Amino acid sequence: MRPYVFVNVAASLDGKISDESRKQLRISCEEDLRIVDRLRAESDAIMVGIGTVLADDPRLTVKSAELREKRQKDGKEPNPLRVVVDSRCRVPLTARILNDEARTLVAVSRIAPEEKVREVKKVAEVAVFGEERVELSALLEFLHRKGVRRLMVEGGGTLISSLISQNLVDEIRIYYGPIFIGGRDSPTVCDGESFLKKCRIEKIERIGEGFAVTARFNR
Amino acid sequence: MRPYVFVNVAASLDGKISDESRKQLRISCEEDLRIVDRLRAESDAIMVGIGTVLADDPRLTVKSAELREKRQKDGKEPNPLRVVVDSRCRVPLTARILNDEARTLVAVSRIAPEEKVREVKKVAEVAVFGEERVELSALLEFLHRKGVRRLMVEGGGTLISSLISQNLVDEIRIYYGPIFIGGRDSPTVCDGESFLKKCRIEKIERIGEGFAVTARFNR
Ligand SMILES: NC(=O)c1ccc[n+]([C@@H]2O[C@H](COP(=O)([O-])OP(=O)(O)OC[C@H]3O[C@@H](n4cnc5c(N)ncnc54)[C@H](OP(=O)(O)O)[C@@H]3O)[C@@H](O)[C@H]2O)c1
Ligand SMILES: NC(=O)c1ccc[n+]([C@@H]2O[C@H](COP(=O)([O-])OP(=O)(O)OC[C@H]3O[C@@H](n4cnc5c(N)ncnc54)[C@H](OP(=O)(O)O)[C@@H]3O)[C@@H](O)[C@H]2O)c1
Repeated sequence: MRPYVFVNVAASLDGKISDESRKQLRISCEEDLRIVDRLRAESDAIMVGIGTVLADDPRLTVKSAELREKRQKDGKEPNPLRVVVDSRCRVPLTARILNDEARTLVAVSRIAPEEKVREVKKVAEVAVFGEERVELSALLEFLHRKGVRRLMVEGGGTLISSLISQNLVDEIRIYYGPIFIGGRDSPTVCDGESFLKKCRIEKIERIGEGFAVTARFNR
Repeated sequence: MRPYVFVNVAASLDGKISDESRKQLRISCEEDLRIVDRLRAESDAIMVGIGTVLADDPRLTVKSAELREKRQKDGKEPNPLRVVVDSRCRVPLTARILNDEARTLVAVSRIAPEEKVREVKKVAEVAVFGEERVELSALLEFLHRKGVRRLMVEGGGTLISSLISQNLVDEIRIYYGPIFIGGRDSPTVCDGESFLKKCRIEKIERIGEGFAVTARFNR
Protein backbone atom coordinates (compact mmCIF):
# COMPACT_ATOMS: atom_id res chain seq x y z
CA MET A 1 0.00 0.00 0.00
CA ARG A 2 1.29 3.40 -0.99
CA PRO A 3 -0.17 6.90 -1.37
CA TYR A 4 -1.52 8.25 -4.66
CA VAL A 5 1.63 9.76 -6.15
CA PHE A 6 1.25 12.92 -8.13
CA VAL A 7 4.22 14.71 -9.72
CA ASN A 8 4.08 18.43 -10.54
CA VAL A 9 6.86 20.23 -12.34
CA ALA A 10 7.45 23.25 -14.59
CA ALA A 11 9.52 22.88 -17.74
CA SER A 12 10.58 24.69 -20.88
CA LEU A 13 9.28 23.35 -24.20
CA ASP A 14 12.52 21.41 -24.50
CA GLY A 15 11.90 19.68 -21.18
CA LYS A 16 14.37 21.59 -19.00
CA ILE A 17 13.52 22.45 -15.38
CA SER A 18 16.50 24.78 -14.93
CA ASP A 19 19.58 25.78 -16.94
CA GLU A 20 23.15 24.50 -16.73
CA SER A 21 23.78 26.51 -13.55
CA ARG A 22 21.08 24.33 -11.93
CA LYS A 23 19.92 27.43 -10.04
CA GLN A 24 16.21 27.99 -9.53
CA LEU A 25 14.67 29.45 -12.65
CA ARG A 26 11.21 30.93 -12.71
CA ILE A 27 9.40 28.97 -15.42
CA SER A 28 5.80 29.05 -14.07
CA CYS A 29 3.49 31.98 -14.63
CA GLU A 30 1.42 33.57 -11.83
CA GLU A 31 -1.63 31.53 -12.73
CA ASP A 32 0.30 28.27 -12.60
CA LEU A 33 1.82 29.21 -9.24
CA ARG A 34 -1.70 29.65 -7.85
CA ILE A 35 -2.72 26.24 -9.18
CA VAL A 36 0.41 24.66 -7.68
CA ASP A 37 -0.38 26.26 -4.31
CA ARG A 38 -3.85 24.72 -4.42
CA LEU A 39 -2.42 21.33 -5.38
CA ARG A 40 -0.07 21.58 -2.42
CA ALA A 41 -2.92 22.42 -0.07
CA GLU A 42 -4.83 19.36 -1.33
CA SER A 43 -1.91 17.02 -0.59
CA ASP A 44 -1.00 15.22 2.61
CA ALA A 45 2.72 15.46 1.93
CA ILE A 46 5.11 17.21 -0.50
CA MET A 47 8.30 15.43 -1.54
CA VAL A 48 11.52 16.66 -3.16
CA GLY A 49 15.01 15.25 -3.72
CA ILE A 50 18.02 16.65 -1.89
CA GLY A 51 19.29 18.05 -5.20
CA THR A 52 16.33 20.43 -5.26
CA VAL A 53 16.85 21.43 -1.61
CA LEU A 54 20.51 22.24 -2.27
CA ALA A 55 19.78 24.12 -5.51
CA ASP A 56 16.59 26.00 -4.66
CA ASP A 57 16.25 25.96 -0.86
CA PRO A 58 12.44 25.78 -1.12
CA ARG A 59 10.07 26.14 1.85
CA LEU A 60 7.44 23.87 0.30
CA THR A 61 4.66 25.47 2.29
CA VAL A 62 1.20 26.58 1.19
CA LYS A 63 1.51 30.26 0.28
CA SER A 64 -2.17 31.24 0.52
CA ALA A 65 -3.33 32.00 4.08
CA GLU A 66 -6.86 31.12 2.97
CA LEU A 67 -5.84 27.66 1.83
CA ARG A 68 -3.94 27.08 5.07
CA GLU A 69 -7.01 28.11 7.08
CA LYS A 70 -9.19 25.81 5.04
CA ARG A 71 -6.85 22.92 5.84
CA GLN A 72 -7.11 23.76 9.54
CA LYS A 73 -10.90 23.90 9.37
CA ASP A 74 -10.71 20.40 7.89
CA GLY A 75 -8.77 19.30 10.97
CA LYS A 76 -5.39 19.23 9.22
CA GLU A 77 -2.15 21.01 9.95
CA PRO A 78 -1.83 24.28 8.01
CA ASN A 79 0.86 22.79 5.77
CA PRO A 80 1.39 19.27 4.40
CA LEU A 81 4.25 17.16 5.70
CA ARG A 82 7.50 17.93 3.84
CA VAL A 83 9.62 14.97 2.75
CA VAL A 84 13.24 15.15 1.60
CA VAL A 85 14.81 12.16 -0.16
CA ASP A 86 18.38 12.42 1.06
CA SER A 87 20.43 9.18 1.32
CA ARG A 88 23.48 10.79 2.88
CA CYS A 89 21.57 13.28 5.07
CA ARG A 90 23.19 16.22 3.28
CA VAL A 91 20.32 18.59 4.11
CA PRO A 92 21.84 21.78 5.58
CA LEU A 93 20.64 22.54 9.12
CA THR A 94 19.85 26.02 7.83
CA ALA A 95 17.69 24.76 4.94
CA ARG A 96 14.27 26.42 4.82
CA ILE A 97 12.66 23.00 4.49
CA LEU A 98 13.66 22.41 8.13
CA ASN A 99 12.04 25.61 9.41
CA ASP A 100 9.14 25.49 11.86
CA GLU A 101 6.36 26.33 9.40
CA ALA A 102 5.62 22.66 8.84
CA ARG A 103 6.73 19.21 9.88
CA THR A 104 9.50 17.57 7.87
CA LEU A 105 10.61 14.00 7.31
CA VAL A 106 14.15 13.45 6.09
CA ALA A 107 14.35 10.05 4.39
CA VAL A 108 17.93 8.78 4.51
CA SER A 109 19.63 5.44 3.81
CA ARG A 110 22.01 3.40 5.91
CA ILE A 111 25.01 5.30 4.56
CA ALA A 112 23.92 8.55 6.25
CA PRO A 113 26.55 9.66 8.80
CA GLU A 114 25.29 9.14 12.37
CA GLU A 115 26.36 12.51 13.76
CA LYS A 116 24.58 14.43 11.00
CA VAL A 117 21.45 12.35 11.50
CA ARG A 118 21.58 13.18 15.23
CA GLU A 119 21.75 16.92 14.44
CA VAL A 120 18.89 16.80 11.96
CA LYS A 121 16.75 14.78 14.38
CA LYS A 122 16.61 17.87 16.62
CA VAL A 123 14.51 19.71 14.02
CA ALA A 124 12.91 16.98 11.89
CA GLU A 125 11.94 13.34 11.80
CA VAL A 126 14.61 11.14 10.21
CA ALA A 127 13.86 7.64 8.93
CA VAL A 128 16.10 5.10 7.21
CA PHE A 129 15.17 3.27 3.97
CA GLY A 130 17.59 1.07 2.04
CA GLU A 131 21.33 0.53 1.99
CA GLU A 132 22.72 3.16 -0.38
CA ARG A 133 20.06 5.22 -2.09
CA VAL A 134 16.75 5.77 -0.36
CA GLU A 135 14.49 2.81 -1.17
CA LEU A 136 11.51 4.69 -2.54
CA SER A 137 8.89 1.92 -2.35
CA ALA A 138 9.67 1.43 1.36
CA LEU A 139 9.48 5.18 1.94
CA LEU A 140 6.08 5.34 0.22
CA GLU A 141 4.77 2.45 2.33
CA PHE A 142 6.01 4.23 5.44
CA LEU A 143 4.21 7.41 4.40
CA HIS A 144 1.03 5.45 3.77
CA ARG A 145 1.23 3.95 7.26
CA LYS A 146 1.60 7.49 8.62
CA GLY A 147 -1.70 8.40 6.94
CA VAL A 148 -0.40 10.06 3.79
CA ARG A 149 -2.92 9.25 1.05
CA ARG A 150 -2.02 11.90 -1.51
CA LEU A 151 1.64 12.66 -2.08
CA MET A 152 2.79 15.51 -4.32
CA VAL A 153 6.31 15.24 -5.73
CA GLU A 154 7.85 18.54 -6.80
CA GLY A 155 11.12 17.32 -8.32
CA GLY A 156 13.83 17.31 -9.32
CA GLY A 157 14.47 15.26 -12.41
CA THR A 158 16.57 12.61 -10.68
CA LEU A 159 13.90 11.76 -8.13
CA ILE A 160 11.10 11.88 -10.74
CA SER A 161 13.09 9.51 -12.96
CA SER A 162 13.50 6.96 -10.15
CA LEU A 163 9.82 7.14 -9.28
CA ILE A 164 8.52 6.78 -12.85
CA SER A 165 10.96 4.02 -13.79
CA GLN A 166 9.99 2.10 -10.65
CA ASN A 167 6.28 2.40 -11.48
CA LEU A 168 5.60 4.53 -8.43
CA VAL A 169 3.82 7.46 -10.10
CA ASP A 170 0.07 7.64 -10.75
CA GLU A 171 -0.17 11.07 -12.32
CA ILE A 172 2.14 13.78 -13.61
CA ARG A 173 1.31 17.37 -14.41
CA ILE A 174 3.85 19.34 -16.40
CA TYR A 175 3.47 23.07 -16.94
CA TYR A 176 5.35 23.99 -20.11
CA GLY A 177 6.38 27.64 -20.26
CA PRO A 178 6.83 29.44 -23.62
CA ILE A 179 10.62 29.24 -23.50
CA PHE A 180 13.59 27.22 -24.66
CA ILE A 181 16.46 26.71 -22.24
CA GLY A 182 18.75 24.28 -24.06
CA GLY A 183 21.88 22.74 -22.58
CA ARG A 184 23.07 19.15 -22.73
CA ASP A 185 23.70 19.40 -19.00
CA SER A 186 20.57 21.27 -17.94
CA PRO A 187 18.32 19.27 -15.60
CA THR A 188 15.20 17.92 -17.30
CA VAL A 189 11.81 16.70 -16.11
CA CYS A 190 13.19 13.17 -15.98
CA ASP A 191 16.93 12.50 -15.68
CA GLY A 192 18.65 9.49 -14.08
CA GLU A 193 19.19 6.68 -16.55
CA SER A 194 16.99 6.33 -19.59
CA PHE A 195 14.09 3.89 -19.76
CA LEU A 196 10.88 3.98 -21.76
CA LYS A 197 7.53 4.30 -20.09
CA LYS A 198 4.16 4.89 -21.72
CA CYS A 199 1.47 7.10 -20.20
CA ARG A 200 -1.95 8.39 -21.15
CA ILE A 201 -2.36 12.11 -21.81
CA GLU A 202 -5.52 13.13 -20.05
CA LYS A 203 -5.72 16.86 -20.20
CA ILE A 204 -4.00 19.74 -21.95
CA GLU A 205 -4.93 23.25 -20.82
CA ARG A 206 -3.61 26.64 -21.76
CA ILE A 207 -2.40 28.48 -18.66
CA GLY A 208 -1.13 32.03 -19.07
CA GLU A 209 1.25 31.98 -22.04
CA GLY A 210 2.09 28.32 -21.47
CA PHE A 211 0.10 25.13 -21.05
CA ALA A 212 -0.18 22.23 -18.64
CA VAL A 213 -0.36 18.56 -19.55
CA THR A 214 -1.75 15.96 -17.17
CA ALA A 215 -0.78 12.37 -17.88
CA ARG A 216 -1.54 9.15 -16.06
CA PHE A 217 0.38 5.90 -15.63
CA ASN A 218 -1.20 2.51 -15.11
CA ARG A 219 -0.56 1.04 -11.66
CA MET B 1 18.27 37.48 -46.22
CA ARG B 2 17.61 33.93 -45.12
CA PRO B 3 14.86 31.34 -45.68
CA TYR B 4 11.90 30.93 -43.34
CA VAL B 5 13.30 28.42 -40.86
CA PHE B 6 10.94 25.86 -39.49
CA VAL B 7 12.04 23.17 -37.01
CA ASN B 8 10.14 19.91 -36.65
CA VAL B 9 10.98 17.30 -34.05
CA ALA B 10 9.36 14.51 -32.03
CA ALA B 11 9.96 14.30 -28.28
CA SER B 12 8.86 12.49 -25.15
CA LEU B 13 6.98 14.52 -22.53
CA ASP B 14 10.32 15.02 -20.78
CA GLY B 15 11.82 16.57 -23.92
CA LYS B 16 13.98 13.65 -25.08
CA ILE B 17 14.38 12.90 -28.80
CA SER B 18 16.10 9.54 -28.22
CA ASP B 19 17.43 7.58 -25.25
CA GLU B 20 20.96 7.29 -23.90
CA SER B 21 21.94 4.92 -26.72
CA ARG B 22 21.23 7.85 -29.09
CA LYS B 23 19.79 5.32 -31.56
CA GLN B 24 16.72 6.24 -33.55
CA LEU B 25 13.62 5.79 -31.44
CA ARG B 26 10.14 5.81 -32.91
CA ILE B 27 8.34 8.57 -30.99
CA SER B 28 5.89 9.82 -33.65
CA CYS B 29 2.60 8.11 -34.33
CA GLU B 30 1.38 7.24 -37.84
CA GLU B 31 -0.68 10.40 -38.07
CA ASP B 32 2.27 12.59 -37.13
CA LEU B 33 4.49 10.84 -39.68
CA ARG B 34 1.97 11.71 -42.39
CA ILE B 35 1.95 15.35 -41.30
CA VAL B 36 5.76 15.42 -41.26
CA ASP B 37 5.83 13.99 -44.79
CA ARG B 38 3.53 16.78 -45.94
CA LEU B 39 5.68 19.38 -44.20
CA ARG B 40 8.71 17.97 -45.98
CA ALA B 41 6.94 18.13 -49.34
CA GLU B 42 6.09 21.79 -48.69
CA SER B 43 9.72 22.71 -47.99
CA ASP B 44 12.46 23.71 -50.39
CA ALA B 45 15.17 22.07 -48.30
CA ILE B 46 15.48 19.74 -45.29
CA MET B 47 18.41 20.19 -42.91
CA VAL B 48 19.94 17.92 -40.26
CA GLY B 49 23.15 17.88 -38.23
CA ILE B 50 25.80 15.24 -38.82
CA GLY B 51 24.97 13.73 -35.40
CA THR B 52 21.57 12.73 -36.76
CA VAL B 53 23.05 11.31 -39.96
CA LEU B 54 25.49 9.17 -37.96
CA ALA B 55 22.83 8.04 -35.46
CA ASP B 56 19.79 7.51 -37.68
CA ASP B 57 21.06 7.35 -41.28
CA PRO B 58 17.87 9.06 -42.54
CA ARG B 59 16.96 9.40 -46.22
CA LEU B 60 15.08 12.67 -45.66
CA THR B 61 12.93 12.13 -48.72
CA VAL B 62 9.20 12.59 -49.21
CA LYS B 63 7.62 9.18 -48.57
CA SER B 64 4.29 9.73 -50.36
CA ALA B 65 4.43 9.20 -54.13
CA GLU B 66 1.44 11.50 -54.46
CA LEU B 67 3.20 14.36 -52.71
CA ARG B 68 6.30 13.85 -54.85
CA GLU B 69 4.14 13.97 -57.99
CA LYS B 70 2.45 17.11 -56.78
CA ARG B 71 5.85 18.74 -56.33
CA GLN B 72 6.77 17.78 -59.89
CA LYS B 73 3.51 19.18 -61.24
CA ASP B 74 4.48 22.41 -59.50
CA GLY B 75 7.75 22.39 -61.45
CA LYS B 76 9.88 21.25 -58.51
CA GLU B 77 12.13 18.27 -58.04
CA PRO B 78 10.33 15.32 -56.43
CA ASN B 79 12.26 15.79 -53.18
CA PRO B 80 13.54 18.92 -51.42
CA LEU B 81 17.26 19.58 -51.28
CA ARG B 82 18.90 17.76 -48.35
CA VAL B 83 21.40 19.73 -46.26
CA VAL B 84 23.86 18.21 -43.77
CA VAL B 85 25.63 20.47 -41.28
CA ASP B 86 28.97 18.71 -40.99
CA SER B 87 32.05 20.83 -40.11
CA ARG B 88 34.54 17.99 -40.47
CA CYS B 89 32.86 16.29 -43.44
CA ARG B 90 32.31 13.13 -41.42
CA VAL B 91 29.33 12.03 -43.55
CA PRO B 92 29.91 8.38 -44.57
CA LEU B 93 30.02 7.87 -48.32
CA THR B 94 27.46 5.10 -47.77
CA ALA B 95 25.03 7.37 -45.89
CA ARG B 96 21.49 7.22 -47.29
CA ILE B 97 21.40 11.01 -47.34
CA LEU B 98 23.92 10.84 -50.20
CA ASN B 99 21.81 8.45 -52.31
CA ASP B 100 20.45 9.52 -55.68
CA GLU B 101 16.84 10.06 -54.61
CA ALA B 102 17.45 13.77 -54.07
CA ARG B 103 20.17 16.39 -54.29
CA THR B 104 22.31 16.95 -51.20
CA LEU B 105 24.43 19.82 -49.93
CA VAL B 106 27.09 19.02 -47.35
CA ALA B 107 27.92 22.19 -45.42
CA VAL B 108 31.42 21.91 -43.99
CA SER B 109 33.88 24.33 -42.38
CA ARG B 110 37.50 25.09 -43.16
CA ILE B 111 38.68 22.27 -40.89
CA ALA B 112 37.16 19.59 -43.16
CA PRO B 113 39.89 17.28 -44.53
CA GLU B 114 40.49 17.98 -48.23
CA GLU B 115 40.58 14.36 -49.39
CA LYS B 116 37.25 13.54 -47.76
CA VAL B 117 35.69 16.65 -49.29
CA ARG B 118 36.95 15.52 -52.68
CA GLU B 119 35.31 12.12 -52.24
CA VAL B 120 32.00 13.56 -51.11
CA LYS B 121 31.99 16.05 -53.99
CA LYS B 122 31.55 13.11 -56.36
CA VAL B 123 28.04 12.49 -55.00
CA ALA B 124 26.97 15.80 -53.45
CA GLU B 125 27.58 19.50 -53.45
CA VAL B 126 30.02 20.60 -50.73
CA ALA B 127 30.29 24.20 -49.55
CA VAL B 128 32.45 25.78 -46.85
CA PHE B 129 31.11 28.09 -44.11
CA GLY B 130 33.21 29.29 -41.17
CA GLU B 131 36.51 28.31 -39.60
CA GLU B 132 35.65 25.56 -37.11
CA ARG B 133 31.95 24.88 -36.80
CA VAL B 134 29.69 25.54 -39.74
CA GLU B 135 28.67 29.22 -39.65
CA LEU B 136 24.91 28.78 -39.76
CA SER B 137 23.93 32.35 -40.73
CA ALA B 138 26.26 32.18 -43.75
CA LEU B 139 24.85 28.77 -44.70
CA LEU B 140 21.29 30.13 -44.50
CA GLU B 141 22.20 33.12 -46.69
CA PHE B 142 23.76 30.73 -49.20
CA LEU B 143 20.58 28.62 -49.24
CA HIS B 144 18.49 31.75 -49.77
CA ARG B 145 20.65 32.74 -52.73
CA LYS B 146 20.08 29.24 -54.14
CA GLY B 147 16.33 29.88 -54.02
CA VAL B 148 15.48 28.10 -50.75
CA ARG B 149 12.62 30.06 -49.21
CA ARG B 150 11.29 27.51 -46.73
CA LEU B 151 13.80 25.40 -44.81
CA MET B 152 12.72 22.54 -42.57
CA VAL B 153 15.16 21.52 -39.85
CA GLU B 154 14.70 17.98 -38.55
CA GLY B 155 17.27 17.94 -35.75
CA GLY B 156 19.09 16.94 -33.77
CA GLY B 157 19.21 18.83 -30.51
CA THR B 158 22.69 20.26 -31.00
CA LEU B 159 21.84 21.87 -34.34
CA ILE B 160 18.45 23.09 -33.07
CA SER B 161 20.14 24.66 -30.05
CA SER B 162 22.62 26.58 -32.21
CA LEU B 163 19.86 27.81 -34.50
CA ILE B 164 17.50 28.96 -31.73
CA SER B 165 20.22 30.60 -29.64
CA GLN B 166 21.45 32.47 -32.74
CA ASN B 167 17.93 33.72 -33.48
CA LEU B 168 17.75 31.81 -36.73
CA VAL B 169 14.45 29.98 -36.17
CA ASP B 170 11.02 31.36 -37.09
CA GLU B 171 8.83 28.47 -36.05
CA ILE B 172 9.14 25.19 -34.20
CA ARG B 173 6.72 22.30 -34.14
CA ILE B 174 7.22 19.66 -31.47
CA TYR B 175 5.20 16.45 -31.45
CA TYR B 176 5.12 15.14 -27.89
CA GLY B 177 4.45 11.42 -27.66
CA PRO B 178 2.76 9.89 -24.57
CA ILE B 179 6.02 8.56 -23.14
CA PHE B 180 8.82 9.31 -20.72
CA ILE B 181 12.35 8.42 -21.73
CA GLY B 182 14.48 9.88 -18.95
CA GLY B 183 18.26 9.92 -18.92
CA ARG B 184 20.63 12.75 -17.99
CA ASP B 185 22.54 11.94 -21.17
CA SER B 186 19.64 11.37 -23.54
CA PRO B 187 19.52 13.89 -26.40
CA THR B 188 16.81 16.52 -25.98
CA VAL B 189 14.96 18.88 -28.32
CA CYS B 190 17.56 21.53 -27.57
CA ASP B 191 21.04 20.64 -26.29
CA GLY B 192 24.30 22.55 -26.81
CA GLU B 193 24.87 25.14 -24.09
CA SER B 194 21.95 26.58 -22.15
CA PHE B 195 20.47 29.99 -22.95
CA LEU B 196 16.98 31.35 -22.42
CA LYS B 197 14.76 32.24 -25.31
CA LYS B 198 11.10 33.19 -25.23
CA CYS B 199 8.62 32.11 -27.87
CA ARG B 200 4.89 32.36 -28.49
CA ILE B 201 2.82 29.20 -28.38
CA GLU B 202 0.50 29.38 -31.34
CA LYS B 203 -1.21 26.06 -31.60
CA ILE B 204 -1.64 22.91 -29.57
CA GLU B 205 -3.35 19.97 -31.27
CA ARG B 206 -3.98 16.44 -30.19
CA ILE B 207 -2.49 14.00 -32.70
CA GLY B 208 -3.01 10.30 -32.12
CA GLU B 209 -2.20 9.65 -28.47
CA GLY B 210 0.17 12.60 -28.32
CA PHE B 211 -0.03 16.28 -29.23
CA ALA B 212 1.86 18.83 -31.30
CA VAL B 213 2.81 22.33 -30.21
CA THR B 214 3.64 25.04 -32.70
CA ALA B 215 5.59 28.00 -31.35
CA ARG B 216 6.95 31.09 -33.03
CA PHE B 217 10.01 33.24 -32.36
CA ASN B 218 10.29 36.92 -33.19
CA ARG B 219 12.79 37.70 -35.94
N1 LIG C 1 11.09 23.63 -12.54
C1 LIG C 1 10.72 22.87 -11.54
O1 LIG C 1 9.52 22.61 -11.37
C2 LIG C 1 11.75 22.29 -10.61
C3 LIG C 1 11.34 21.58 -9.50
C4 LIG C 1 12.31 21.01 -8.68
C5 LIG C 1 13.65 21.13 -8.99
N2 LIG C 1 14.02 21.82 -10.08
C6 LIG C 1 15.45 21.92 -10.46
O2 LIG C 1 15.98 20.59 -10.49
C7 LIG C 1 17.36 20.61 -10.14
C8 LIG C 1 17.60 19.58 -9.06
O3 LIG C 1 17.25 18.31 -9.56
P1 LIG C 1 18.21 17.07 -9.33
O4 LIG C 1 17.79 16.04 -10.31
O5 LIG C 1 19.62 17.54 -9.31
O6 LIG C 1 17.88 16.63 -7.84
P2 LIG C 1 16.64 15.92 -7.11
O7 LIG C 1 15.90 15.01 -8.01
O8 LIG C 1 15.88 16.96 -6.39
O9 LIG C 1 17.42 15.07 -6.01
C9 LIG C 1 18.15 13.96 -6.44
C10 LIG C 1 18.94 13.40 -5.30
O10 LIG C 1 18.11 12.71 -4.39
C11 LIG C 1 18.86 11.71 -3.76
N3 LIG C 1 18.22 10.41 -3.80
C12 LIG C 1 18.24 9.52 -2.78
N4 LIG C 1 17.62 8.42 -3.11
C13 LIG C 1 17.18 8.56 -4.37
C14 LIG C 1 16.49 7.70 -5.25
N5 LIG C 1 16.08 6.48 -4.88
N6 LIG C 1 16.23 8.14 -6.48
C15 LIG C 1 16.61 9.37 -6.87
N7 LIG C 1 17.27 10.23 -6.06
C16 LIG C 1 17.56 9.82 -4.82
C17 LIG C 1 20.18 11.61 -4.51
O11 LIG C 1 21.20 12.27 -3.77
P3 LIG C 1 21.93 11.46 -2.62
O12 LIG C 1 22.52 10.23 -3.30
O13 LIG C 1 22.92 12.37 -2.04
O14 LIG C 1 20.85 11.09 -1.67
C18 LIG C 1 19.91 12.36 -5.77
O15 LIG C 1 21.06 12.93 -6.33
C19 LIG C 1 17.66 22.02 -9.72
O16 LIG C 1 18.29 22.68 -10.79
C20 LIG C 1 16.29 22.63 -9.46
O17 LIG C 1 16.28 24.04 -9.69
C21 LIG C 1 13.10 22.42 -10.89
N1 LIG D 1 13.04 12.55 -32.45
C1 LIG D 1 13.43 13.31 -33.45
O1 LIG D 1 12.61 14.01 -34.07
C2 LIG D 1 14.89 13.35 -33.82
C3 LIG D 1 15.28 14.08 -34.96
C4 LIG D 1 16.64 14.14 -35.26
C5 LIG D 1 17.57 13.52 -34.44
N2 LIG D 1 17.17 12.81 -33.37
C6 LIG D 1 18.17 12.20 -32.48
O2 LIG D 1 19.10 13.21 -32.12
C7 LIG D 1 20.38 12.61 -31.89
C8 LIG D 1 21.41 13.36 -32.69
O3 LIG D 1 21.45 14.70 -32.27
P1 LIG D 1 22.80 15.44 -31.98
O4 LIG D 1 22.47 16.62 -31.14
O5 LIG D 1 23.80 14.45 -31.48
O6 LIG D 1 23.31 15.83 -33.43
P2 LIG D 1 22.87 16.92 -34.53
O7 LIG D 1 22.25 18.12 -33.92
O8 LIG D 1 22.12 16.20 -35.59
O9 LIG D 1 24.29 17.28 -35.14
C9 LIG D 1 25.17 18.05 -34.35
C10 LIG D 1 26.50 18.15 -35.03
O10 LIG D 1 26.45 19.03 -36.14
C11 LIG D 1 27.73 19.58 -36.32
N3 LIG D 1 27.69 21.04 -36.41
C12 LIG D 1 28.46 21.74 -37.26
N4 LIG D 1 28.26 23.04 -37.13
C13 LIG D 1 27.35 23.19 -36.15
C14 LIG D 1 26.76 24.33 -35.56
N5 LIG D 1 27.05 25.57 -35.93
N6 LIG D 1 25.88 24.12 -34.55
C15 LIG D 1 25.56 22.88 -34.17
N7 LIG D 1 26.09 21.76 -34.70
C16 LIG D 1 26.99 21.92 -35.69
C17 LIG D 1 28.55 19.22 -35.09
O11 LIG D 1 29.42 18.14 -35.42
P3 LIG D 1 30.82 18.51 -36.10
O12 LIG D 1 31.52 19.45 -35.17
O13 LIG D 1 31.51 17.22 -36.32
O14 LIG D 1 30.46 19.20 -37.37
C18 LIG D 1 27.51 18.75 -34.11
O15 LIG D 1 28.02 17.80 -33.21
C19 LIG D 1 20.23 11.16 -32.28
O16 LIG D 1 20.05 10.40 -31.09
C20 LIG D 1 18.98 11.12 -33.11
O17 LIG D 1 18.30 9.87 -33.03
C21 LIG D 1 15.85 12.72 -33.06
